[in-house]
Amino acid sequence: MNLIARRKNEQQESTAVRVGDVIIGGPQLVVIAGPCAIESYEQILGTALEVQRLGASLLRGGAYKPRTSPYSFRGKREEGLEILAQVKALTGLPVVTEIMDARDLEEVAKVADMLQIGSRNMQNYTLLTEVGKSKLPVFLKRGLASTLEEWLYAAEYIMAEGNDQVVLCERGIRTFENYTRNTVDITAIPALKELSHLPVFLDPSHGTGRASLVSPVALGGIAAGADGLMIEVHPQPELALSDGDQSLDFEAFAELMERARPVAKAVGREI
Amino acid sequence: MNLIARRKNEQQESTAVRVGDVIIGGPQLVVIAGPCAIESYEQILGTALEVQRLGASLLRGGAYKPRTSPYSFRGKREEGLEILAQVKALTGLPVVTEIMDARDLEEVAKVADMLQIGSRNMQNYTLLTEVGKSKLPVFLKRGLASTLEEWLYAAEYIMAEGNDQVVLCERGIRTFENYTRNTVDITAIPALKELSHLPVFLDPSHGTGRASLVSPVALGGIAAGADGLMIEVHPQPELALSDGDQSLDFEAFAELMERARPVAKAVGREI
Amino acid sequence: MNLIARRKNEQQESTAVRVGDVIIGGPQLVVIAGPCAIESYEQILGTALEVQRLGASLLRGGAYKPRTSPYSFRGKREEGLEILAQVKALTGLPVVTEIMDARDLEEVAKVADMLQIGSRNMQNYTLLTEVGKSKLPVFLKRGLASTLEEWLYAAEYIMAEGNDQVVLCERGIRTFENYTRNTVDITAIPALKELSHLPVFLDPSHGTGRASLVSPVALGGIAAGADGLMIEVHPQPELALSDGDQSLDFEAFAELMERARPVAKAVGREI
Amino acid sequence: MNLIARRKNEQQESTAVRVGDVIIGGPQLVVIAGPCAIESYEQILGTALEVQRLGASLLRGGAYKPRTSPYSFRGKREEGLEILAQVKALTGLPVVTEIMDARDLEEVAKVADMLQIGSRNMQNYTLLTEVGKSKLPVFLKRGLASTLEEWLYAAEYIMAEGNDQVVLCERGIRTFENYTRNTVDITAIPALKELSHLPVFLDPSHGTGRASLVSPVALGGIAAGADGLMIEVHPQPELALSDGDQSLDFEAFAELMERARPVAKAVGREI
Repeated sequence: MNLIARRKNEQQESTAVRVGDVIIGGPQLVVIAGPCAIESYEQILGTALEVQRLGASLLRGGAYKPRTSPYSFRGKREEGLEILAQVKALTGLPVVTEIMDARDLEEVAKVADMLQIGSRNMQNYTLLTEVGKSKLPVFLKRGLASTLEEWLYAAEYIMAEGNDQVVLCERGIRTFENYTRNTVDITAIPALKELSHLPVFLDPSHGTGRASLVSPVALGGIAAGADGLMIEVHPQPELALSDGDQSLDFEAFAELMERARPVAKAVGREI
Repeated sequence: MNLIARRKNEQQESTAVRVGDVIIGGPQLVVIAGPCAIESYEQILGTALEVQRLGASLLRGGAYKPRTSPYSFRGKREEGLEILAQVKALTGLPVVTEIMDARDLEEVAKVADMLQIGSRNMQNYTLLTEVGKSKLPVFLKRGLASTLEEWLYAAEYIMAEGNDQVVLCERGIRTFENYTRNTVDITAIPALKELSHLPVFLDPSHGTGRASLVSPVALGGIAAGADGLMIEVHPQPELALSDGDQSLDFEAFAELMERARPVAKAVGREI
Repeated sequence: MNLIARRKNEQQESTAVRVGDVIIGGPQLVVIAGPCAIESYEQILGTALEVQRLGASLLRGGAYKPRTSPYSFRGKREEGLEILAQVKALTGLPVVTEIMDARDLEEVAKVADMLQIGSRNMQNYTLLTEVGKSKLPVFLKRGLASTLEEWLYAAEYIMAEGNDQVVLCERGIRTFENYTRNTVDITAIPALKELSHLPVFLDPSHGTGRASLVSPVALGGIAAGADGLMIEVHPQPELALSDGDQSLDFEAFAELMERARPVAKAVGREI
Repeated sequence: MNLIARRKNEQQESTAVRVGDVIIGGPQLVVIAGPCAIESYEQILGTALEVQRLGASLLRGGAYKPRTSPYSFRGKREEGLEILAQVKALTGLPVVTEIMDARDLEEVAKVADMLQIGSRNMQNYTLLTEVGKSKLPVFLKRGLASTLEEWLYAAEYIMAEGNDQVVLCERGIRTFENYTRNTVDITAIPALKELSHLPVFLDPSHGTGRASLVSPVALGGIAAGADGLMIEVHPQPELALSDGDQSLDFEAFAELMERARPVAKAVGREI
């Protein structure tokens, strides 16, 4: 593979991705936090203020939600983007939100500081090409059954359009093990740091699917060299419209942040 | 799952999907054949005439090709559709071709008698919704790591738009075994016939990735109850721009058809 | 791989395995049937007479049962072997039974006409070596997560001891799909026929884990070139001490045999 | 599952496993190091002295080696045990070595301070029962395709014989990803700490199969809560008779130990 996404040699500098004032891929370990889905203005504002206070640098929240069933809650869409815009204005937190349809790009780009491509769309080449053209930073989640090679090729679809602001996010792969929602491939983190110059994140929320396992796996990811974490946080996980089982409440998120700091420091990073 | 795609009870009649004059899901076992990608007018016409002569009822051929690398041959696009239109006019064979981008729907729908949704797009909900609205028959391939349940939900995205003309196509799933390109889940065929009223196809070309294994697996699929086969056929597989390793030449396809007839008959079907 | 188990060239004759008067790997398609576990003399005798009448050539039945939990029913052991010996004497059916411990070999060999190595023991090298030395025919099931290559190497452990009477049995591999107990790798059948000269069986009972799917998958296996089938049959599956969900009752087995004959004939075999 | 291996409630004390003077499962993070296979007295002595100096508490080394091919180097067997005994006497390091055959137990138990059950034998119930009876500590590796539940049941086979000195070792599972030898299931560590009171180790050498990835994954395991690490160390990995690709040389092992200390400290452990 002779790809733009590939690290040419050990000396090649790693790519830093800039989202608002936040630098991803530098010495600072970056935490993106927020709910799976945007449910209401109060939910997002409350969560944003709390995760910001606890050390998160970016806010996540889905307006468009890919759901296995067409009959599940599929997001508040334009209304969700509007809420995100308001909370961003109030808190100053840059926002990451998922785009599922190239035709929504203009609308989403008005609010999003970073565009998320979800697992199901990792090989949606239309979408990859369009976000490549947009020049906005892209948060590219790994496909459920994608090899590292296929993932880097997906990044290449974006980079081939002249957009080098790509962050790779490991979020668990599908295996035979069903105690957890997915199987976090922790080795993907150092493997990608060798293979590519792009920043690598870990999403232990989707990776594990169980709130009680999110923190230990998050710490594992930091120690293994991740450049950041994406964490699902919800004011009341038991009432969440999606992914409640894997969402941390504020208290658990606070505890994670506290435990993360010494681990980050132990591997030469800061939060 | 209380889905339109689900079989309500054993008495419920199976859905017949009509493509041109061809009925999928009836007593006739339907064979779709043709090359992976449309490469030239001569290639498509030659293949169409030959597979038609040998008993295929529909022609396949990709104008838009999803490829892992952005630098691979990605199909002849509009020019490919044009070739398809000409060959269809000449031979009378209805055509199945893949759609990757909802924005191409109008163009593709001018030629296609059935729209193929490829594995990578099985959960591209935008695309599913749009082909649902189109009312054209849809050939829905299973995602590489999709469960039967997720697959039926994908069909439901199409059917929820009022389009019940959906054919499910097993094309192999991703497992640890790497002697073959994918692992054909033969059990999916009878399982889906129980779970759903939709017709079920098998694509042993992608399923195995090896030409020498296509025929025995195709016969296995017929015996297990498949309503049809999708087979990659190329005049000169060794020169194919994609999927040459798994394509049958005319002679091998002729032999498959000959071997398929008695097997189909043994399970009460005809080709 | 330059192995005894490998087919040297297309001309090499396939190995025939002889079990009593039964030839496995010849034109005759061989059916092994019987319950998962030996529960009582009546159960085994009744099943043996019925499956024999319906066309099975060998009787299966486990005296030693590998069970995930140490607290599950683990077989009637010596008493089970005694039952098997009596039923064999009465019916003349050769018997296949599992050996789990090399130290039981002498005892088991007094009764068994073919020794079964179960999936969990496919890489139990001690056991493979000992059954190799025994010179009894060996029925080698594929490991849950074994590649074709590893499987042939397991056969090689037996053959390297001078025992070439080895039958390979595909029984499903472990994948992400959980609608079925395992995923039958149908392609393994023709792939092994190319790679090796050993006979290849299919066990659709363990492969699917659901009685309603056993027959269609069995037919698929025949059409794909299997040399035989291993089928779990129980007089009253709902009362079985193990594997009841996947066991056929006499009526379902009779129907399978009836449907199997024309399919076998369609691919040039007889039952 | 109402198993001895299961944690009854959050208050239940975790099991400490004592191997010589070493306590596994306490505040001390325990490192087991040494070569895959015992090749010579010099190799083992040199490695033992070096890993001891660098902080390892136990020595690993295989006298009996399970190998996929019967024609590969399968260990020095009795001669290997003899070497291990001498090096243990000289260095005072307790030793962990694999047992593959219940019939070797008496011989192996003369030297081994802890018996290793390898992945291929995780469901070799004969062997589990015998090591259960032996009362020696057991190092139980996870099967290649075993769920957490099946793994705990395997431990139960040992514990049901009255032996509660069991350590669980995650060593990677088999998935579709082939850049690495296996996929380390990092989440298994905290999941097992919740489900069971037994100590949990990580073997990043087999888990990754690549020396360059061993250290970051080892650090990840510590941060995720592992009670210890098993690391393959060889004086000259490029000359190793097995597993050279994944073995650390002395320098790399020294660096790992240095990096491990602050991470262990960050999660409240010591090395």
